[in-house]
Amino acid sequence: MTTKIEGKVVFGIDIGGTTVKCGIFSDSGEMLFKDEIKTRTQEKGKFILSDVSAHIKELADKFSIKRENILAIGYGVPGPVQDDGVVNGCVNLGWGKVNVKEESEALNDGIVSSAGNDANVAALGEFWKGAGKGTKTMVMITVGTGLGCGVIVNGHVIFGAHGAGGELGHTPLVEGLTEPCNCGKTGCLEQAASATGIINAAKKKLRETDEPSILRGKESFMAKDVLDAAKAGDRLADDVVNYSTRYLARGLAVTAGVVDPEMYVIGGGVSKAGDFYLDKIRGYYRELVFYASRDAMITQALLGNDAGMYGAARLALDSLGN
Amino acid sequence: MTTKIEGKVVFGIDIGGTTVKCGIFSDSGEMLFKDEIKTRTQEKGKFILSDVSAHIKELADKFSIKRENILAIGYGVPGPVQDDGVVNGCVNLGWGKVNVKEESEALNDGIVSSAGNDANVAALGEFWKGAGKGTKTMVMITVGTGLGCGVIVNGHVIFGAHGAGGELGHTPLVEGLTEPCNCGKTGCLEQAASATGIINAAKKKLRETDEPSILRGKESFMAKDVLDAAKAGDRLADDVVNYSTRYLARGLAVTAGVVDPEMYVIGGGVSKAGDFYLDKIRGYYRELVFYASRDAMITQALLGNDAGMYGAARLALDSLGN
Repeated sequence: MTTKIEGKVVFGIDIGGTTVKCGIFSDSGEMLFKDEIKTRTQEKGKFILSDVSAHIKELADKFSIKRENILAIGYGVPGPVQDDGVVNGCVNLGWGKVNVKEESEALNDGIVSSAGNDANVAALGEFWKGAGKGTKTMVMITVGTGLGCGVIVNGHVIFGAHGAGGELGHTPLVEGLTEPCNCGKTGCLEQAASATGIINAAKKKLRETDEPSILRGKESFMAKDVLDAAKAGDRLADDVVNYSTRYLARGLAVTAGVVDPEMYVIGGGVSKAGDFYLDKIRGYYRELVFYASRDAMITQALLGNDAGMYGAARLALDSLGN
Repeated sequence: MTTKIEGKVVFGIDIGGTTVKCGIFSDSGEMLFKDEIKTRTQEKGKFILSDVSAHIKELADKFSIKRENILAIGYGVPGPVQDDGVVNGCVNLGWGKVNVKEESEALNDGIVSSAGNDANVAALGEFWKGAGKGTKTMVMITVGTGLGCGVIVNGHVIFGAHGAGGELGHTPLVEGLTEPCNCGKTGCLEQAASATGIINAAKKKLRETDEPSILRGKESFMAKDVLDAAKAGDRLADDVVNYSTRYLARGLAVTAGVVDPEMYVIGGGVSKAGDFYLDKIRGYYRELVFYASRDAMITQALLGNDAGMYGAARLALDSLGN
């Protein structure tokens, strides 16, 4: 049995360091199909965009999508993207300077293409079809290995004059650290508020104190283990989660002082800890933020790993002036 | 001799706690005339808007401006302003909740009126006709008794979901303070980076150390005196200016992580210290900010006390869809 996709579509492509997620969307934003291909990072990632192009052709054949019905292609990429679609280096992909817009248009018979930073694009997805639906101004924080951030004001992503809008993870908000961050500085929010930050803080506490803890003696553990231990009443783990969420709340409070959003959407693996985790952020936020912004909502992301594809599809539709 | 103002005009009104600055602007943004009246804060500031209205009529008579040539009136007010023009309390004016738009339109024969927070409006003025001319994305910081801030993205002021966009002065960025800020919290950027912050830090250093200093023994001094002393080589004063500018730079670095502007414009009394002051901010900013945003410009405001009138006039023109 062959399925046929009729009507106009856009592709939402979320390029990660391991896989490229590909979504087909109707022009009203309904996801019709998704799958993924491997990311070939060999030879400075030179195959990635042509692999995507080949896959788009394959999917178009599979679903009998006519060329003229593919309106646009949007990309989320793990690096800073300028207004003109030029990516200024993606360590995870092996990319130096890559003009995603131009290369994609050349590879795909001129289909209008656009690109945005993956965290910004995920924020756009949650804003459009996820937790932020109905808001005008929203900030999304993705708490994973790193700390992603996307800022939406009046329905538009703030990409920034240097492609660095929503780089909250690399703002100087943490005291008392000595190890450098990936970015080269020390004291970045990411170092305390990401999953990696939680693991590092727990290891440090285990090393420097002799407090009893479920985590003690384990060869290795994940941020989830720290959160589970904290939920189960482990004092040391709870202190670590308090430390991490207080810094995250500080980041939100500072963000409020710049753009004063209606809502903060928290996504990424760590956010799966749910209200136990979110309530800590909410409490510290209310304590730290300027009174006028105190009632902004702090809520869990809804789209999971699909947020990037949704956002990339929205970027594609926006590039058509829809 | 009477001067006559012909053609379409807007009024830019900047309401402060002591005076109300009134500017008449051509519809292309040229300032044609300015003066000021006293701010009557008695009886919860109930006379302020009618005083302004009477003054507008007076000026219209004086310059033979026809009623139909007054296109719009814009206001800057010292408090949080919602999207709909409702002011949610201005301590300096004695105001509780005031609908500036509605009240002004009722008092001025229906002339379209709009209002914004004074720091946001001053930023709009500098963006339009001052140091930020030609940029798309700009953040202005006014370093005075308090720390004002206005954020412009793609030509629009970010007023915020709760009227608190650009409240950088009240973000939790300063460690080691015990005294509360005006807003009720402790550790606000304003407490270290405003003129008041400079004075307080100098007093503290004089009290807690016995370092020699030109400032020692003075009964009272201003932020300007601290800056002048630092310029003259006074070590204690220089330490204070370093402390204050490093925190201000931290505020800019965090702002970069949210909206990544092209330019920061520094205004207010303290900014008159010029490059001696700005170079310190520039140096700390480059040290603290995410690498992609390192080359944003940090420059001195150009319009001085007129910025608010210019911005209010621009707000008025924007309200017409110009």
